[in-house]
Formats: sequence, C-alpha cells, structure tokens
Amino acid sequence: MASLNDPTLRSWIDIPPTSDFPIQNLPFGVFVTEDGGPHLGVAIGGYILDLYALSQYGFLEDLDLNGQQPKVFRRRSLNPFIALGPPAWRAVRQRVSELLRHDNPTLRDHESAMHTCLVRQSTAKMLRPVKPRNYTLFSGEQAPTASANPLPTDWHQMPRGHHGRAGSVVVSGTAIYRPNGSCPSATATEAAFGPTQQLDFEQGVAFVNGQATQPGSTISVAEAEDSIFGVVLLTTWSARDIAQGEAGSFLGQRFGSSISPWVVTLDALEPFRAAGPSQLPEPLSYLRQSGLHHFDVQLQAAIKPATAATEEETVVSAVNFRQAYWSMAQQLAYQTSNGTPVQVGDLTASSPLNGPTPEALGSLLALSQGGTRAIPLNDGSTRTYLEDGDTVTLRGYGEKDGLRIGFGEVIGTVGR
Amino acid sequence: MASLNDPTLRSWIDIPPTSDFPIQNLPFGVFVTEDGGPHLGVAIGGYILDLYALSQYGFLEDLDLNGQQPKVFRRRSLNPFIALGPPAWRAVRQRVSELLRHDNPTLRDHESAMHTCLVRQSTAKMLRPVKPRNYTLFSGEQAPTASANPLPTDWHQMPRGHHGRAGSVVVSGTAIYRPNGSCPSATATEAAFGPTQQLDFEQGVAFVNGQATQPGSTISVAEAEDSIFGVVLLTTWSARDIAQGEAGSFLGQRFGSSISPWVVTLDALEPFRAAGPSQLPEPLSYLRQSGLHHFDVQLQAAIKPATAATEEETVVSAVNFRQAYWSMAQQLAYQTSNGTPVQVGDLTASSPLNGPTPEALGSLLALSQGGTRAIPLNDGSTRTYLEDGDTVTLRGYGEKDGLRIGFGEVIGTVGR
Repeated sequence: MASLNDPTLRSWIDIPPTSDFPIQNLPFGVFVTEDGGPHLGVAIGGYILDLYALSQYGFLEDLDLNGQQPKVFRRRSLNPFIALGPPAWRAVRQRVSELLRHDNPTLRDHESAMHTCLVRQSTAKMLRPVKPRNYTLFSGEQAPTASANPLPTDWHQMPRGHHGRAGSVVVSGTAIYRPNGSCPSATATEAAFGPTQQLDFEQGVAFVNGQATQPGSTISVAEAEDSIFGVVLLTTWSARDIAQGEAGSFLGQRFGSSISPWVVTLDALEPFRAAGPSQLPEPLSYLRQSGLHHFDVQLQAAIKPATAATEEETVVSAVNFRQAYWSMAQQLAYQTSNGTPVQVGDLTASSPLNGPTPEALGSLLALSQGGTRAIPLNDGSTRTYLEDGDTVTLRGYGEKDGLRIGFGEVIGTVGR
Repeated sequence: MASLNDPTLRSWIDIPPTSDFPIQNLPFGVFVTEDGGPHLGVAIGGYILDLYALSQYGFLEDLDLNGQQPKVFRRRSLNPFIALGPPAWRAVRQRVSELLRHDNPTLRDHESAMHTCLVRQSTAKMLRPVKPRNYTLFSGEQAPTASANPLPTDWHQMPRGHHGRAGSVVVSGTAIYRPNGSCPSATATEAAFGPTQQLDFEQGVAFVNGQATQPGSTISVAEAEDSIFGVVLLTTWSARDIAQGEAGSFLGQRFGSSISPWVVTLDALEPFRAAGPSQLPEPLSYLRQSGLHHFDVQLQAAIKPATAATEEETVVSAVNFRQAYWSMAQQLAYQTSNGTPVQVGDLTASSPLNGPTPEALGSLLALSQGGTRAIPLNDGSTRTYLEDGDTVTLRGYGEKDGLRIGFGEVIGTVGR
C-alpha cells in the first residue's frame, strides 16, 4: 500500500495544500444528501466520492467484495463494509486512488459518472460512520490536577480500561446538551439536582475494530494492528460535579461522546508511525512491544463562545496522539486477553490524552487546574468550564514531508 | 390486560402445572429449527408458537403492526418487534392468548396451521432474544463478605451503576470459557498470567428496554414501567482473582453474561408485584416511589459437576428478585436522569442479588465467604469456585394462587 501514500501523488481534483483530505488519505464515511442515501463515501479535498454511485457505474465491479456490492455501499454505517475484511478495504482504497490520480482519465473524463460520483461536502450531511457494539476507554497519562479517580500504582505495567455506553456515541455536529445530576455532598443532606455547572470535554482518539473474535479467543499485540480498520477523533463530554460522587464513570461521563465522521485508515497513517512514551516500568510480558506503534498526530481543541465571531475561536488545548501511553495494539491485546469477544465497529478510545507539558492537557479540568484557574479566550471572556452556546471544535492531522493527513473536525455546541 | 392473567384460563394444549409457560405467561423469544428461521415465537407449555407462521396463515393480519408483518417475525432478535411499541406487544399477546384458549377452535381445529405453528421446544434452538446496544448493571445489596469494591456510604440515596459490555451477552446454553488474566501482586514483580482460579457466577435479573429516547430527554420513575418490555434471567460470569486488581469491572467481570432465551413481559408479571426493601434513608427526591414496584420472583442457582448425574445437581443459592434494593423503574429513571439516550433492547441488570439471610447470597464469592468456606455438593464434592465441566443452571419463577409464571433456565457449562 506504500504507493498510495507517496507524497508526490496528485489528483485531477483541485485540492488545497491545507486540506485534510489529499489523495493519500481517502478516509471512509457515510453521508446523505437531498437526493438520498445513506451511501458510503470517501473524502477527497472538498468532495465526497460516492462509493455507491461508483459501484453502480461499474467502476468497482471486478473487486472481490463477497457479492455484497452495490448494497454494502448503501448502508447506514460502515460496519458491513468493514466486515468484508482488510483485502476488501484495501482493494477499494486502491481503486479509489487510481481513479482519482491526475493522469487517469477514466472517471475524470466520464462526464455523467464524474458529476454523479463527486458530491460537494457542503451539500452532504455526514452520519455517525460506525455503529459500535462495544465502546471501551483507556485513560492516557493522568494530568497532575485531575485526580478525582487516580490511576493505580501498577498502571504502567497493565492499562486500566472502562466500558462506555455505545449508544451514546454521536457524530460531529450533534448538539451537546447540559446534563442534569446530583452531586453528593459530604453531609447526609440531599444535594441539589440540576444542570451540571462543570461541563467539560476530553480530547481523545478512538480506533475502529475491523475483525470480530469468538468468545474465548484473544488477539496478541503482534496481531492487533491487522485487526484495526482505522481511527477517528473523539471527545468524551464530562460533567465533573456529577462525576464526583461516582467511583467509576457513569452519569458524569457517559452521556455523550462525539466522533469525527471520517475514519482514517491505519494504511493512510503509515507515514506517521512514531515511538510512544518510554514504557518503564516494563509492561506485563504479554503486552510488551517493540518498534513504532504510536502515531504522530497533532490534536487541538478550540472554544468559540456563542457571541464570538468564527475567527475568534481560541485553541485551548494541543496534544499529540503519540502521547497516549498505551498503543492501540496494546489496548486491543489487553482488552481481549481474557477472551471477551470484540465485534466489527467497536470503538476503543484513548481519552483523555495528556502530554508532558502544561499546555498539553486534554481537558478543561486539567487546563484549569481543577477549576481554579480561568482560561482566557480571544474574545476577552474566560472559561473554567463550558458555557451554554460554546462551540468546541477538535481537529487532528499528521504532517510530514509536505504531506498532511487529517481527520476533519469534531464539533459540538453546548445546548440547553 | 388483567384478563390474560386470570389463573382459571386454560389452553387446549396440555400443560403440566409445573411448567414455566402456562397460557398466562406467553413470553417472547427467537428460535431456529432444522426447517429454517430465525422466527419470533411465544413459549406455551413444551411448545413454541411460531409468530411468523401464525402471521403467514393470516391469524394476525388485522393487528396494527405498522405494516411490518410478517417480516418483523422473521428476524434475528426481538428488537424490531419491540420497537413497534406497547400497543403492538399487547395486541400480539392478546391474540396469542385468544388463539390458545381451550374453548377457541380457530387454531386448534385448523390442522395444517396448528401443525405448522406449534414447534416442540426440544426441536428448536433458541437464540439470544435481544441485541442490546447498552448493557447497564446495578448492584444489589452487598453481601457482607464480598467487599472488594465496597459500595459508597450514600448508596441508599442514589444507586450506583456500571456499564457492561453489550457484545459479551450470550444466550443460555453458550459454553462459558475460563478467562485468562493477571492478578496484580502487592510487590512490584509480575503476576502470573493464566486461567482464573476463581471463576464465579452472579445471580441476576435484567429488564429489556422497550422505548428509545433522544439525547437530553429523561424518563421519570412514574413513566419508567411503561418503557419496559420485559424481564430475563441473567448471570454475570466473574473471575474474582482477575477482578482484584481492577477498580471497576473490566477484564474480571465483563467477559460474559448469559441470559434466558425467553423475555417475560411485565404484563405477565403483574400478579407478582410486591414491595421491595424498605428504602431508608430516603432516596434522592427524583427517585422516590410509592406502591408496589418490585416483583416476587424466586431465583435459584444449581451446580452440577461434569461427573454427576443430572439429578445430583445442588441448589447452592436462592434469592428473590424483590430483594433488589432499587426497582427497575428507579434504575431506568436514574440511568436516564442525565439525559443519556436509551435504545430498544438495552439490558439493565440487577446483579448480583443478595438477600437478608445467609443462604440468600447470589454468588460463590459471597456463599463461600470470600473463598474461605467450602460449599458441599450432593455428589460428595465441594466447591469454593467453579471447576471445569461444572454446569450452572439458573431458574426463576413467580408462584401465587396456583399460577406459576416462569423464565425457563439459564445454563452455562464451564469449558476450556
């Protein structure tokens, strides 16, 4: 697949160098338009290449998709496509790359096909790309000030995971409501029940599982990357006051997670392989790993108050996916080490991500030092936690040798 | 619906008085036979009434099922049927009750329909009845000796829930594998990774959610029962040594839960309404409830070693669903109080259930007092935790005025 990542590849579609979606990326998503859908598509510059239309025109008909085309491209989620397995993912991505190359006239010069298959992103509505059965979260390195639930001392030998609420995962653009809850007080009297006063976000990344296992079987660290379809940006919304009375993460943290509509394949991220944090003390033996299994992906989160102009958003947090302590492969191996089955479309998140510097903190809880320090915004206001009408935007991309592979955005506006 | 529960109702099918499935029960499930399927069905005595076949013969055609019949009865789970809503559930149950009454010749005397629609349970394989998106667990009262993760002190005011792993829920009869794991030791040296030596089960009950909500909306205690489709028996398998190093429930507890194949409707359980434990100190105001919102359902768990004859199983645990501290309505209200959406088919479990007496403990951990007391079995052997080849069988039923409404069995045999 290396050739698909060649930085010198060009498309006949005009793509600005700042786009997240050059011909080397080709992430998968699901969209609807006024004309119908949902269809599966691939992002290319400011367009979506409609895989269903492409299939209808016969451009994919020689690919071995287990007899599932075109219907696999006319579904509400990527799950059935992912279930076809890595050869199918790669065959489709390879074909899309070929059809979009600047020197390939097949689609470019087929006027009706070109107009039907290329959909402007501005005219489409993106759906949640996958339907997860299981949603698992692994903490990143803990921020010094965010220790309501401190990690156990042997956390560097063995990660700690939590189960999320798969049905609460929504796609970017979904309004984020302000949850109600009670914050238990130190006394026996009843805490007030009402809207959270400490609404926060956590910056994260999640991988999409690509292969199902049977109960009792495991996936080793060495095998794990072959089971991963791709990666999305993810933010978990959090009500810090509601969470305070909870030992685990229930009402205060699992009411909503927003993910990006585009799933960037591991193949597309190949150029950004990097070393993760030095793992000392050594992990348990079945979790040990050598080589480059983290990915150098810059992540940032910005806040824009309702009254601020768009250009007045403030980047409040910048972290890097390579700062996740445990690699995706280690997370998958750990998760399946007891034989629990995984299913296609499962999400496994690294969230929140925190880095080694004071700015590299992935939540307002950490950035505001537990709500004690106000964070200045460009419009002159300050924040410790989110206010109604605030829009949070997460972005993420890898950049190297002039090649930029991005994830698009995850946007959430706080309602109520 | 009260008339469907009348203890004097009789069917033209011969049903022994010890059956879990008299005409007053009519639980829903999904089955396959050598001839095909999956079809939805209703249990009646030793038979399944095939709803798909019934629909094909036109016996349901005047019912308002939103144009979804017969296909809604030819699915792999009850979810699409449940999504039709309470009027549809009740209309089908009412019609089935009418068709099975001793004095109704319509189906009884229609020879071909009767033979096609009635399937012997012994010739069918039951599937997992629902496909849960979310799987939530609420602890019952804690057993004195099972305090690895003690409940917080304000637990009587506000329940504590945990998210399970929806993809690990299996139907009765699925083999239970012995999970691997590492048990962190007090020293810094590495714990051995291998099969659990403390495999346990927890007796529980789960309700099946019947109505979806949108993010941000809630279900009040008063509304909650109308949103519940029915109830299944559930056992969560547990590896006590693996769980020891975990603050929450991850590898040690969420590798498998087994549920009964039949979902008993709340309507069928109506005669067994009962008071739950006295709730003092009072719950938070939005959780308070008066009236009878628990259900008097006897539950028991038996162990049969591989070498023992069937009649040599030993009932080791007997608890009652009414001993669940929080009612199903309170659990659903609490779970949605922060606005997190619920979906059709979601499972919410009360597990483990423990009662007020030393025998009324719902796990081997509690019964063996943390593994310190051997539990004698009828074949002369003893158990603290489960051994390979052991078969655990859970049963549950309500009994009153000569009427018995049962759940059938949940069976799991420990493999490796």
